[in-house]
Amino acid sequence: MKMRIVVVGANAAGAKAASKAKRINPKAEVTLIDRGTFISYGACGIPYFVSDTVADVKELMSTAVGVVRDAHFFKKVKGVTVQTGVEVTGIDRESKVVHLLDTSTGQSSSLGYDRLILATGSSPFIPAIDKVGLPNILTVKSIADAELLKNCAISGDRACIVGGGLIGLETAEALQKKGMRVTVIEMRDQLLPGVLDPEMAYLVEKHLRQQGVTVMTGCAVTGFIGHTTVSAVRIGGQELPADLVVLAPGVTPNVGLARAAGLDLGVTGAISVDARLCTNDPAIYACGDCCETNHLITGKKVYIPLGSTANKQGRVAGINAAGGEAVFAGVIGTSILKVFNINAGKTGLSESEARANGFDVETVLSPAHDKAHFFPGAKPIVLKLVAERTTGRLLGLQAAGEGAVDKRLDAAATAITFHATAEQLSQLDLAYAPPYSAAMDNLIVAADILKNKLAGHARGVSPHDVKRKFDAEEDFILLDVRSPAEYDETGIEGATLMPLGLLREKLEELPRNKEIITFCKVSLRGYEAHRILDAAGFENTKYMDGGILAWPYPLRDAS
Amino acid sequence: MKMRIVVVGANAAGAKAASKAKRINPKAEVTLIDRGTFISYGACGIPYFVSDTVADVKELMSTAVGVVRDAHFFKKVKGVTVQTGVEVTGIDRESKVVHLLDTSTGQSSSLGYDRLILATGSSPFIPAIDKVGLPNILTVKSIADAELLKNCAISGDRACIVGGGLIGLETAEALQKKGMRVTVIEMRDQLLPGVLDPEMAYLVEKHLRQQGVTVMTGCAVTGFIGHTTVSAVRIGGQELPADLVVLAPGVTPNVGLARAAGLDLGVTGAISVDARLCTNDPAIYACGDCCETNHLITGKKVYIPLGSTANKQGRVAGINAAGGEAVFAGVIGTSILKVFNINAGKTGLSESEARANGFDVETVLSPAHDKAHFFPGAKPIVLKLVAERTTGRLLGLQAAGEGAVDKRLDAAATAITFHATAEQLSQLDLAYAPPYSAAMDNLIVAADILKNKLAGHARGVSPHDVKRKFDAEEDFILLDVRSPAEYDETGIEGATLMPLGLLREKLEELPRNKEIITFCKVSLRGYEAHRILDAAGFENTKYMDGGILAWPYPLRDAS
Repeated sequence: MKMRIVVVGANAAGAKAASKAKRINPKAEVTLIDRGTFISYGACGIPYFVSDTVADVKELMSTAVGVVRDAHFFKKVKGVTVQTGVEVTGIDRESKVVHLLDTSTGQSSSLGYDRLILATGSSPFIPAIDKVGLPNILTVKSIADAELLKNCAISGDRACIVGGGLIGLETAEALQKKGMRVTVIEMRDQLLPGVLDPEMAYLVEKHLRQQGVTVMTGCAVTGFIGHTTVSAVRIGGQELPADLVVLAPGVTPNVGLARAAGLDLGVTGAISVDARLCTNDPAIYACGDCCETNHLITGKKVYIPLGSTANKQGRVAGINAAGGEAVFAGVIGTSILKVFNINAGKTGLSESEARANGFDVETVLSPAHDKAHFFPGAKPIVLKLVAERTTGRLLGLQAAGEGAVDKRLDAAATAITFHATAEQLSQLDLAYAPPYSAAMDNLIVAADILKNKLAGHARGVSPHDVKRKFDAEEDFILLDVRSPAEYDETGIEGATLMPLGLLREKLEELPRNKEIITFCKVSLRGYEAHRILDAAGFENTKYMDGGILAWPYPLRDAS
Repeated sequence: MKMRIVVVGANAAGAKAASKAKRINPKAEVTLIDRGTFISYGACGIPYFVSDTVADVKELMSTAVGVVRDAHFFKKVKGVTVQTGVEVTGIDRESKVVHLLDTSTGQSSSLGYDRLILATGSSPFIPAIDKVGLPNILTVKSIADAELLKNCAISGDRACIVGGGLIGLETAEALQKKGMRVTVIEMRDQLLPGVLDPEMAYLVEKHLRQQGVTVMTGCAVTGFIGHTTVSAVRIGGQELPADLVVLAPGVTPNVGLARAAGLDLGVTGAISVDARLCTNDPAIYACGDCCETNHLITGKKVYIPLGSTANKQGRVAGINAAGGEAVFAGVIGTSILKVFNINAGKTGLSESEARANGFDVETVLSPAHDKAHFFPGAKPIVLKLVAERTTGRLLGLQAAGEGAVDKRLDAAATAITFHATAEQLSQLDLAYAPPYSAAMDNLIVAADILKNKLAGHARGVSPHDVKRKFDAEEDFILLDVRSPAEYDETGIEGATLMPLGLLREKLEELPRNKEIITFCKVSLRGYEAHRILDAAGFENTKYMDGGILAWPYPLRDAS
C-alpha cells in the first residue's frame, strides 16, 4: 500500500515539507491541507505589498519565473494534492486519522495518514485589552490582512503601530510611504527588544525619527477608544488619536490542534520536537512557526519563528516523514530588518542575552564605511561584537547602518556556528576589493579591536557609561581628538578638543591622574590617543567605544 | 636602550606593521623607509582613479576622515619616523644594519636595527618580449602609474590590456569608461585563470563583450611594434593596432634585497616566513606582497598578494617585531572583482584547483536572485560550489552575477575556514528578510542541491558536457521544461520543449531508455523534472546544472 503523508498548513514549512516528501518518496500519496484560500505565499513580503513596493499580491505567491504556486501547480508540478478552505478539526492518533471541516460547505470528513506533518504556523498575538476587536485594528499575517491593510492606508490619516519589533517597523515604513502619519508604540524602553541592545536600537530609532515616524517607547497600550471604528489608542491616562491601528506585538504558535491531540508542547509554548522534528508521537512531525527549536549557543529551547527556518525545517520534516533521515540542528537567533534606509540585525546573542545566560562578556562597538571609503556609495555601518571574555569566543554580532550589514551578519553567523574566536575572526580571508569593503573588512577591524581589549591593550567605555558619568557629574575629561573642523561641525556636549596630531606635543596640558576618555568619529583615532596617553604614563585612560557614529544620544549643533 | 625597529616599504603591510609595532612597544624607535614619494596608498583603488570614479588621487592616500597619510601624519599620529625617497640597498645581518641611498641627493647612509620588517611589496611582471620598454606601455601599480595612465587614456584611442586577470579587467573597465576602445588579451583560454573555472569565467567574458570590450583568449603577445611609441601589439603573425598598452600579466614579489641578504625564498619565489612571519633570520620579519603564505585547504605554500592579506600580515609582523606574540595562519584564496555591472569572485579552491590537488569533487551550479525575487532590484547570481565527494566538505565557492556575490563569498569563506560540510552549510542561520535574500538563501539552496547530489538523489551534467554531447552528435534528449512563453523567448539550440506542468501526464511521449537531460531557467524545475522521470522508471535521466542562466555558450534567438 502507498504511504499516505498528510501535511497540515500549506505555507513555507508545509509546502516545502509536502514537496520534499513527494520527491523523496515518489510513490507516497501526499496531501497538503490549508484552512485558508491562499497557500505558499511569502508572508514576509506583505509590508512591501502594502507600500506598493510590490505591485501585485500574486508576486508573493509566485515562483521566481512568475508561476503562481496554487493547488493546480502543486498537483501538476509537485505531484501533491492540495485541499484549501479545509480546517483540520482533530487528530485521532490511535487510528491515524485527521478530521476535516470544509469551511465553505460546512461538510465534515476524515483522512487517514501514515505520517502527519504539522505546519500550522503562528498567529499574531492579540492582547486582551479593551475594544481590541474594532474592525480597523488590524494585524499583518495573511494575504487578506495585506489587502485590508492596503485599503485602510489612507494618506494623511493617523496610524498607530502597537509593537516596535521587526514586523511593526516594516509596517511603519509601509504606511508612512502610503502617506500616513505613523506612530510606533513599544512597551519596552527601546525598539527591537530581543533583537538589538539599547545603544544599537537607538540608532534605528534615530533614523525612524529622521524619517518622520513618531516613536514612543516604554508605553503600554491599555485599550482602544471608538464605537464602530477605533478613534484613539489609550496609553495609561493618555489618549492618542488614531484612524488605523496595527497590532504587531509578536506572534504565538498555533498549537491548538497539537495540544488537543495530546502532543507535547515545550517550555516556550510551541510544539516540542526532536532533532528529526518528530513530536512525541513517532508518526507525527512538526515544522515551521508552530514548533520550538534549539539555540545552538545557549543550548536552550527557543521560539524564533522565521521564514528561513521554516523552509529548512520543512525540508527536514518532509524527508523524515517520507522515510528518509535528516536532522535540523537549531538556530542562533539571526534576524535582520530594512526600515527606510537603515539595515539592522543581529546574529547570535546580544550583550543583554549573553549576560542573561551567564556569560562573562566583552563587547566592541566599531563604526566604519561598508566599502573602501573612497569608493562612491560607501556608507557607514556600526558593528557591535559580543564575545566571551575568558575564551575570546564570538557570541554575537549586531549591525546597523545604511551600508551592507547583511553580509557582515552572514559571515558572523557562520563564524559563530563554528565557535570562532576573535583571533579566528580576525584572520578570515574575506573577499576584498574597494567596491566591497576596505582592505580590512569591518568584521576584521572589529575583531582586532576585540583582541586588543581581551589582551588589555585597549580599555573601552560604552557611550552609555559616558552619558551616565556626565549625568552623575563625575570628574573626568572626555577628550575629542578629531580635527578642529570636525569639532566645529558637531560634537558631544562637555567634551574637550585635542586634535590627535597635536596630542603627543601637548601632553603636559592634560592632568596625569584624572580619568581621560578619548574619542573621535569612529574611535580609531580615539583608540590611538588612548594608547599614546597610556604610553606616556597617564594613569587612568580609556577610549569611548564607537565614537560619534555610535553615540546614540543627541549631538550638539555646530559650534 | 630603546628597541630600534626598521620597516622597509611603507604601503599596506609596512605602514600597518610600523604603526602596530609602535603601539605595542611605545618606547621603540620605529622607522619606516620607502623608495617612493607616496606612502600608504590604496593601490587597489588605482583603476577607480583612472576612470574618474575617484576624483582626487589624494583620496587613495587618505584616512576615512580625509587626513593624508604622509610622513607628517605618521610622525604626529603614529609616532613613526618616515623616510621617503630612500632606497634600502643592502642588509648587513651580522651587524644588524641597513644601507640606505637617498635617491634624490645620491647620499648613502646606514641605520641600525634590532628588528627589521621587510614589506618590499611586488612589481608588475614585465614579460621579456620585443620593445616592451616603449613609453606608452604602462603598468598599474604606483600612484605615478595611475597618473600616467589617466593622462594617456584618450577617448577614441585603442587600448590593449595584456592579461585578463583581476587588475587587467578592472583597468579595461576604467579605460573603456574614459572612452577608449579596449581589447583584453589573455594567454590562457579563459579570463580570470587561477580565479574562476571556465564556465564561470565565460559569464564574465559574456558581460565584458556586452559592454563593448573585445576579448581575445588563448592569445600570447609576442612583441610590440612602434618606434618612439607603441603602435601595435604582435600576437604570433597578427598585428593588433594599439595607441596604449597596459601590462597586467600578474605581479612578482620584490625579493632582491632579501635574496642578497641571504634570506630564504620559498617554492613560490617569494620570501619564506613562519607562522609568526619571521624569516630564517630571527631578527627579520616579512609581510605583504613580498612573502608567501600557507593555503589553509591544500596545506601548500602559495603566493597570492592582496591588500587584505597585507594588512593582516602587517599587524602580525608589527606585533612580533615589537616583542609581542601573534601568528598569521594563512589564506584560502579568496578574491573578488567588480567589472562593469558584474561581480565575480571565488573563495577556497576552484574545481580545477581541487582536482589538481587530488580531491574527488562534486560540484553544483546554482543560479538564483540575490534577494526575494519580488523585491525591487533583485538580480541574478550564479553560484558554483565545489565539495569533496567522500566527506561532503566544502572546498570552494565561485560566484558571478549582477547581484550581491560578495556576501555569499564571505559566508562561504568563513564556512570553508571551519571545514564546513554541505550539511552544515545548508543549516546556517543566515540573515533573512526579502531585501536581503530569498527565504532560502542562494548558499542554502546550493548546499541542498549538493546534498541531493551527494546522496544520489540528483545526477547533474555540466553545461560543458551537454555542449560536448551535442558537438559529438550523441543520441540524447535535452528536455527544456520551461513554459512555452519562456521557450519562445530564448533557449538552447537542439532542446525539446516539455513544460514541467505537462510532464507527469505526457510521460508516454518520451522514450524510457534514452538519456534525457532536463533543464529550465535555473534548473530547479529541471531537477524536479529529473526526479519525476526517475520516479516513473526512466532509466537514464539527469539534469543540467544551472540551466539557462549558467549556460555559458550562445543561446538561440526568439523562436
